[in-house]
Amino acid sequence: MKDDKQKIVTQPLSGFMELLPKEQIAFNEMFDTIRKTYENFGFIPLDTPVLERADVLLAKAGGETEKQIYRFMKGDTDIAMRFDLTVPLARYVAAHYGDVTFPFRRYAMGKVYRGERPQAGRFREFYQCDIDVIGDTTLDVRFDAEMPCVIDAIFCALGFDNFTIRINNRKIFNGLFAELGLHEQSTRIMQSIDRLEKIGRDAVENELRELGLSDDAVAQLLAFVCIGEGGSEVIARLQSLGITHPLFVEGVAELAEVIATIEQCGVSASHFAIDVTIARGLDYYTGTVYETRLDDYPEIGSVCSGGRYDDLASHYTNRTLPGVGISIGLTRLFDQLRKRDAVQIDKATPTRVLVLPMTEDCTPSLALATDLRSRGIATEVSFVTGKMKKRLGYADKLGIPYAIFVGEDEIETGRFTLKDLRSGEQIQLTAQDIIQKLTVEKDIDKKAICA
Amino acid sequence: MKDDKQKIVTQPLSGFMELLPKEQIAFNEMFDTIRKTYENFGFIPLDTPVLERADVLLAKAGGETEKQIYRFMKGDTDIAMRFDLTVPLARYVAAHYGDVTFPFRRYAMGKVYRGERPQAGRFREFYQCDIDVIGDTTLDVRFDAEMPCVIDAIFCALGFDNFTIRINNRKIFNGLFAELGLHEQSTRIMQSIDRLEKIGRDAVENELRELGLSDDAVAQLLAFVCIGEGGSEVIARLQSLGITHPLFVEGVAELAEVIATIEQCGVSASHFAIDVTIARGLDYYTGTVYETRLDDYPEIGSVCSGGRYDDLASHYTNRTLPGVGISIGLTRLFDQLRKRDAVQIDKATPTRVLVLPMTEDCTPSLALATDLRSRGIATEVSFVTGKMKKRLGYADKLGIPYAIFVGEDEIETGRFTLKDLRSGEQIQLTAQDIIQKLTVEKDIDKKAICA
Repeated sequence: MKDDKQKIVTQPLSGFMELLPKEQIAFNEMFDTIRKTYENFGFIPLDTPVLERADVLLAKAGGETEKQIYRFMKGDTDIAMRFDLTVPLARYVAAHYGDVTFPFRRYAMGKVYRGERPQAGRFREFYQCDIDVIGDTTLDVRFDAEMPCVIDAIFCALGFDNFTIRINNRKIFNGLFAELGLHEQSTRIMQSIDRLEKIGRDAVENELRELGLSDDAVAQLLAFVCIGEGGSEVIARLQSLGITHPLFVEGVAELAEVIATIEQCGVSASHFAIDVTIARGLDYYTGTVYETRLDDYPEIGSVCSGGRYDDLASHYTNRTLPGVGISIGLTRLFDQLRKRDAVQIDKATPTRVLVLPMTEDCTPSLALATDLRSRGIATEVSFVTGKMKKRLGYADKLGIPYAIFVGEDEIETGRFTLKDLRSGEQIQLTAQDIIQKLTVEKDIDKKAICA
Repeated sequence: MKDDKQKIVTQPLSGFMELLPKEQIAFNEMFDTIRKTYENFGFIPLDTPVLERADVLLAKAGGETEKQIYRFMKGDTDIAMRFDLTVPLARYVAAHYGDVTFPFRRYAMGKVYRGERPQAGRFREFYQCDIDVIGDTTLDVRFDAEMPCVIDAIFCALGFDNFTIRINNRKIFNGLFAELGLHEQSTRIMQSIDRLEKIGRDAVENELRELGLSDDAVAQLLAFVCIGEGGSEVIARLQSLGITHPLFVEGVAELAEVIATIEQCGVSASHFAIDVTIARGLDYYTGTVYETRLDDYPEIGSVCSGGRYDDLASHYTNRTLPGVGISIGLTRLFDQLRKRDAVQIDKATPTRVLVLPMTEDCTPSLALATDLRSRGIATEVSFVTGKMKKRLGYADKLGIPYAIFVGEDEIETGRFTLKDLRSGEQIQLTAQDIIQKLTVEKDIDKKAICA
């Protein structure tokens, strides 16, 4: 063994996911389901470069992003790798404003990069699957209601039943703070409230008092925070709190319309809930916000989040472009589900049929394979030489469901031996009947997925 | 207008393709066709990281690659962006040898990076769409014949009829050089011969003499090079040249088997040809080589190339892993076709139906949209307020084929107005009949694509 071969580490860089074939097929199925759902709701695909000018990506970003970003010089150009899909969208809409039809409904599914220290469950390269609707100057609040409908369709299609899309409106929080005269402390108050589940009500009350809040303000804040989760009934409770600040009233009215529209869309009541404690991205979102939790795996945290923002591209254009969007971090979601055996990993190949030529002349096998493929039945011809046991061992390892033997008898009679490799059952059929049988099966499989 | 907004350039970096929505949809259709064909031939998806350790990517690379590569330090790690999908495949197979079933048929479709000076038609970020079959120690030559069958299926599915897959075998050239005692000058001779079309026969003869070749050697070389293109008949001509070097004989025998198998697969004779002058990547390929030209656009050059190699992963493992593969540079292909109006760019959205609520209560519209989507008919609900003309203008700009109006009458009678926005024709139908009509149309569309 040469020394230099031992020096090269063949594992991927730490923090980079690399899947085995079976896992990759399962990952791609999730990816395809998300993509198909986005398209079914009329979102338009968009694929922007992974590399951007560093000043474009950092126009808005704060200190943390700047530390995490992959950035380098190539010649005289200061280049960075995108760390999300929203900043490139903002640049795109500013650059191609005249070529885009508003409201611009776009989906983007691609890799983004964050060079943070790898932790359990965090990746430096990961897929984001985003949709956004961008309005020109205005955007109706009912677009906010559409997002939970898309989330619902996706997680149902992925085979989940127990999940909750938590919905809030940032104006409600901001209006409450304004009413209580606490606007300047809002960030620290939110951080404290975020820890309610973790440290308990008493500890949060103490923290709030330490921030200088009056007993009355603490009581009002906690009455608000503990208002409970649910549908339209929570709206009534919010309205009865007696808070009159216009921002609060506006937020509650928007939330009411969003919830009503979601109900009209037929989203199951068990799949969504108002949760006044969620408040994603303090600066970025300005109205409706979403988080999604898988109720059987609450420890994963939110698997699909997003919200409404007033102005997408203020760093690149003077046009006001309000938007609303959601994002699924698919790499992390897949990784977390895989660790919990919550993703079906069963196929090691797309192949459904292995055709085994048993004569010198392969023509009939090759013709049969071409026929099967023309009907969309994924087919391989076995070119491996050696004993039949070895050749079938390949199909067995990959879990290919069918083998077709093409020997002299089969060629003469035009009836091929179709073997179900799972049951061991063998039948003699014409090429036409084989295609018929496998096409019907494929359609049944498809329907099973759709139901 | 703030000054800083004018400073940020919103165009993508030079050499990076960014498409408008209509183009992106056309690009994705090509991408999906290639992917579907790869899967139909039983290739397994694989997605490796874009970033790799620089020493992994540069283990084999020469000076040119090193200059072009995007490479940077992050902390103590020397990182580079992949410049193709073959080197990552080699590392992957070495790293996951025990988890891979051989022959390993994998497809990979992803972005690769080359920081070269941008020239017309060259990109710094581009999609490669690769398949490879990797054997463990050995790999039957018939796998070489499968590649042109895949290429043929792809370009037919993309709607091309006039294309030629050019096939050669490197052993034929190498055997000829060995027979003529010209092995050491082979690179320079090849370069000269490569320019045959460009500079003409006489100029090439002169160049070869300048390299010190005897008149006899020049004559033999040119007799070989000018043997003509075609199918099996070229094999006979090669055999009649009287060259006896074992490598030459072996190459001709392999080529004969590859051509015979391609013919057995039913690939149209007009879609492939032996061309003894092609000899891709002098070092890398060791046997069969392929190039594919669109006969209507010869100036594009090869749109799908590849070949056989003896040992995929010699830099990462001591196992001998022979392979054969092809690659489509989709970004460049799309760009070239687009410039020639040779790609159908007609759809600006996946949406087929725009549902227009005309009452305060959107419930019936939302329910109808949910119904349509559940049958896979991509549907949007118009939440844009204002006059009907403005609302329909959106559908018009995007070329959405159908609108459904949901007003009070429609809700009362349960019959909705379906308008074909291309013909202007309007009919009243129940939700059930609308779904029926649009599903049938969708299936017809699908069949039209397959035929």
